Amino acid sequence: MAKGDRKRAMRGRAGRMQGGRGSGRASAGQVRLWGRHAVEAALKNPERQHRKLWATREGIESLDGELPPDFPVEYADGHDLARLVARDAPHQGLVLECAALEDVFLADVIGDPERPILVLDQVTDPHNVGAILRSAAAFDAAAIVTQDRHAPPESGTLAKSASGALEIVPWVRVVNLARALEELAEAGYWRIGLAGEAEATLAEAMPAGPVVLVLGAEGEGMRHNIAAHCDALAKLPISDAMESLNVSNAAAIALYAAATRSAPGADC
Amino acid sequence: MAKGDRKRAMRGRAGRMQGGRGSGRASAGQVRLWGRHAVEAALKNPERQHRKLWATREGIESLDGELPPDFPVEYADGHDLARLVARDAPHQGLVLECAALEDVFLADVIGDPERPILVLDQVTDPHNVGAILRSAAAFDAAAIVTQDRHAPPESGTLAKSASGALEIVPWVRVVNLARALEELAEAGYWRIGLAGEAEATLAEAMPAGPVVLVLGAEGEGMRHNIAAHCDALAKLPISDAMESLNVSNAAAIALYAAATRSAPGADC
Repeated sequence: MAKGDRKRAMRGRAGRMQGGRGSGRASAGQVRLWGRHAVEAALKNPERQHRKLWATREGIESLDGELPPDFPVEYADGHDLARLVARDAPHQGLVLECAALEDVFLADVIGDPERPILVLDQVTDPHNVGAILRSAAAFDAAAIVTQDRHAPPESGTLAKSASGALEIVPWVRVVNLARALEELAEAGYWRIGLAGEAEATLAEAMPAGPVVLVLGAEGEGMRHNIAAHCDALAKLPISDAMESLNVSNAAAIALYAAATRSAPGADC
Repeated sequence: MAKGDRKRAMRGRAGRMQGGRGSGRASAGQVRLWGRHAVEAALKNPERQHRKLWATREGIESLDGELPPDFPVEYADGHDLARLVARDAPHQGLVLECAALEDVFLADVIGDPERPILVLDQVTDPHNVGAILRSAAAFDAAAIVTQDRHAPPESGTLAKSASGALEIVPWVRVVNLARALEELAEAGYWRIGLAGEAEATLAEAMPAGPVVLVLGAEGEGMRHNIAAHCDALAKLPISDAMESLNVSNAAAIALYAAATRSAPGADC
């Protein structure tokens, strides 16, 4: 479809869209994104099917020319926008309704030895998963992998925390996380699971080659079967005063440790 | 005051306590904490003046014997507790009303060359400050320092994110952050400001001796005058795809980098 045709088709869909208003929820298969970084990144993402943008004048101005001139926009005031999104959500004058992103497969993200893959076992808080996506984009991770039943759906809250990274980092959702870890091992990845009870530190356990970093939910940690599918377990060197770090902070540190393991200017 | 006297006095105060119920806010000078880790740590903290605990039976059981036998407890159900705290707050069956912690002074936390000090300039989100306290406790930081007018108050939301660390990490609130940075320099600390536009990476800029890590608010970064009071500016080695990390994630990485700079098992 030519670019102009696609835009017309999107407008058509937006025109047909019914209901949803005031519910704070998008229709099935769709998602409402809000906040400047999240909306701007979604508008730039060619993989993202956009439906409609609700915005204040200030919201549109903050986009700094990112919006195609014939994009379907409905101007509204801040209070109207607040009714479209989660309670107290900081929409910053921009609410975009769009289709959820299409599935990404594990085979599509395997292959670059420099880029770590992050596997999340039962991390369900959308703020945490969003912040993890943000760090994954910042440290150039190849993908995050989650298990369908134990991960949050794509959502406005998650996208806001991801600050645009939801559009950048491939997110692989699998039915069976243990099987995905087997596939990653077959592809030559070394799988490190972060676990407070491990003997080795993350720095000691970090390999030179392709690496998968596996994190479990706060409190419960990785499930036993997931830990059993790691090549090594490693801990962060934290004090006995604390049981654990926030999972997005642990993920950020793991990604930093992977990014600096051989880079010039690293600790060596 | 003997231990028994203090407990009786606390009970007396709790008995006199009026109002507040249903408002989601504690009285002036007091704070309501919720969630198992935050409440358990506050109960263990001898510096914390407790007033009263509202709890479900399950909440009390989760404390695992931490509660002194004659502590003033009011049993309630989960719905009643929900009215005592911030909207949708995950209270886990425990709400503790207590006095805010007493002021800590910069001079009290200066001195251990191994322990970094974290300075936060205008980081106002209580979730972020809470998560930063948690990482500061985990990596054995000597203190966090904030400017009175540009930092969140002690609160239940912050304490929940801190997961007990609010009771562990000294929090110095100063009137003038630039003056505090001068005092830290006079005490022999090397002050590194995290700034995306810096030339050096954090690993390159990290000194061997006493270090202060300075972080600004997301988006705006440090104020000019605060950056001018750093001995060096350093960046995290992140991709151009992202403007910045979440500030609590950046703080966690900075603390990890400081903790591993010379430890056995670090990158070298």
